[in-house]
Amino acid sequence: MITLTSDFGLKDPYVAEMKGVILKINPKATLIDISHEVEKFNIRMAAFTLASAAPWFPHGAVHLAVVDPGVGTQRRAILIQTHKSFFVGPDNGILILAARNQGLKHVYEITNHKFMLPKISSTFHGRDIFAPAAAYLDTGTQPREFGPEIKDLTKPEFVSAKKTSTSLIGEVMQIDGFGNIITNINETDMVQKPGEKVNVDLPNISLKLKFGKTYAETKLKEPIALIGSYGFVEIALNQGNAAEKFHSKAGDKIVVTAA
Amino acid sequence: MITLTSDFGLKDPYVAEMKGVILKINPKATLIDISHEVEKFNIRMAAFTLASAAPWFPHGAVHLAVVDPGVGTQRRAILIQTHKSFFVGPDNGILILAARNQGLKHVYEITNHKFMLPKISSTFHGRDIFAPAAAYLDTGTQPREFGPEIKDLTKPEFVSAKKTSTSLIGEVMQIDGFGNIITNINETDMVQKPGEKVNVDLPNISLKLKFGKTYAETKLKEPIALIGSYGFVEIALNQGNAAEKFHSKAGDKIVVTAA
Amino acid sequence: MITLTSDFGLKDPYVAEMKGVILKINPKATLIDISHEVEKFNIRMAAFTLASAAPWFPHGAVHLAVVDPGVGTQRRAILIQTHKSFFVGPDNGILILAARNQGLKHVYEITNHKFMLPKISSTFHGRDIFAPAAAYLDTGTQPREFGPEIKDLTKPEFVSAKKTSTSLIGEVMQIDGFGNIITNINETDMVQKPGEKVNVDLPNISLKLKFGKTYAETKLKEPIALIGSYGFVEIALNQGNAAEKFHSKAGDKIVVTAA
Repeated sequence: MITLTSDFGLKDPYVAEMKGVILKINPKATLIDISHEVEKFNIRMAAFTLASAAPWFPHGAVHLAVVDPGVGTQRRAILIQTHKSFFVGPDNGILILAARNQGLKHVYEITNHKFMLPKISSTFHGRDIFAPAAAYLDTGTQPREFGPEIKDLTKPEFVSAKKTSTSLIGEVMQIDGFGNIITNINETDMVQKPGEKVNVDLPNISLKLKFGKTYAETKLKEPIALIGSYGFVEIALNQGNAAEKFHSKAGDKIVVTAA
Repeated sequence: MITLTSDFGLKDPYVAEMKGVILKINPKATLIDISHEVEKFNIRMAAFTLASAAPWFPHGAVHLAVVDPGVGTQRRAILIQTHKSFFVGPDNGILILAARNQGLKHVYEITNHKFMLPKISSTFHGRDIFAPAAAYLDTGTQPREFGPEIKDLTKPEFVSAKKTSTSLIGEVMQIDGFGNIITNINETDMVQKPGEKVNVDLPNISLKLKFGKTYAETKLKEPIALIGSYGFVEIALNQGNAAEKFHSKAGDKIVVTAA
Repeated sequence: MITLTSDFGLKDPYVAEMKGVILKINPKATLIDISHEVEKFNIRMAAFTLASAAPWFPHGAVHLAVVDPGVGTQRRAILIQTHKSFFVGPDNGILILAARNQGLKHVYEITNHKFMLPKISSTFHGRDIFAPAAAYLDTGTQPREFGPEIKDLTKPEFVSAKKTSTSLIGEVMQIDGFGNIITNINETDMVQKPGEKVNVDLPNISLKLKFGKTYAETKLKEPIALIGSYGFVEIALNQGNAAEKFHSKAGDKIVVTAA
């Protein structure tokens, strides 16, 4: 089973080209799209999307992820073997969040031309290097056959929330398609219990919100704070778009204090 | 075979998470997306989309549909067994149009935790309850094992067209991606024959149209009334966008009379 | 294996209806979407998209493509057998670029009702004629069984680039989702070597650009000319949108001269 994540969009033939390459090598492959609508060049969003989806897939899945602004330069192509599955993509941080959650075993640089297309373009390694690597991994090729083991994986600065005696200081990780404001504040860091009130400070507004459990617990179009399906604090409107209403965007600071 | 319909969009990892959950339970499942671009929270549009697509799938297909603004509240999770296939989703009307077309046999509330994920979030029952139910159904689990049979299915008011001695009074059901204005006026209710003229009254305009058979029967960018691929009256422009031109939207009243 | 290309979009149930029809005939079919976000009625864009993706798929693949403004009129339904695979769609030029690259063997008109749905709408031959034809082809039905061989395939005017003693005169074929300006000027026609400068004249701007190999070779948001993954000259910005910056669109004239 191979999952695919990219910023290629669904209009152009790029995703299909990767799938064609995989199916030529491995005609029985099960292919599942995670998302191809990651914001262009946004490695962090891709890393978060992949980290959200990967835990739900079976052991042994191969996760192919390509957001690759450095394609054709010296940035390495890598393969991460975790205790649960495999990750294939550029060494720019895109794989790290998801892979770390599963416990890293080995990281290999992909250098063996036996597992690449014969002709490699300088603009589309997703098709020419990463897709074949994922296909061969899925057929049972051993990770160490792809190239030398490496220890100096690129680790980007994906911010964690900070805890003080009176507050949680975090960041907006993502606005989802519903307009829910998804933060990096972990469920386990919240001291409030469902039903209590919290103060939430966003760049454009200060809110006193119910810390609830379901979107529908508040009035229609009214805001609520809750733990989303990822286990992080979200600010949402009941059947409305919170990010639009509060002019929030990924990267915004968020502070949660007792109300 | 499992089909998926939702308002989750394709940017976020939500659809992939449902698929991962299904494939963990049933690695051989065939998964087909009907649409994930249903307008957010629009149960009626999801019901119409599912009812349009379901007839084309094989006997025994499991249709999973999740537009679920009441997630986490007391609204029930249900499973409908028809004479042809299975439907899984929230009890808010999303399944009813498609299921009714196939003849209802039994409706069950999904309450058996054996067929749910061990941990159930309050915000994403698509992944935690409906996806596993669909996966187990697809592997042959008997519908009655999921929970008690129920008789009081939620039936929303999806309007049918009315017939008077001189006119058909209907509603715009949907604007499709081509801008075709799809109504709820059934092919079988039309007294006109192809080639005849009809008067069509929409909120913003009164039109005298050819009642034709193909989009290309009229001049480029000119309007025509015809029976669409669902068997309902549509107003279309030849290679143009009728809904934009006539400022039509779902829910608009439409009256058809002899010209 | 069946690929699908259309202008149906992903919001409406049309693509799923085609897939349901295919899976009813051939439940084991592997279905791969190339794109359903082709601009409405844009046969040329569909032809280019299909021609880009088809080479990457295995021998014997069936490529189904439907952009069909003439649906229901006298335009023919055809099946092209090449030296590598099969193409199914309307006879309006959509298949020709991809099929010609593989070498045409036979073209058949699809007329045999045995391989169509029992009831054929006048508005959706993708579902009623093309999808069943693709499904039967994929199960091994012989191409000649679908109808009579024809010799007068519709060949649209898809422009090729012209070469003069001092310049290459081409056209913008497509703007991709990254905003890359993809032209019809072939790699093999360029006399410059990577690293040299070229003059590029677009309708709204004249540029002196590095003719490079990778997007990241130029400064952030700066333009570069390079050979894209299709083997054609592209104008791109490093992590930016070239088409937006230079107000380029498909169909624009482009002239490349030595700098």
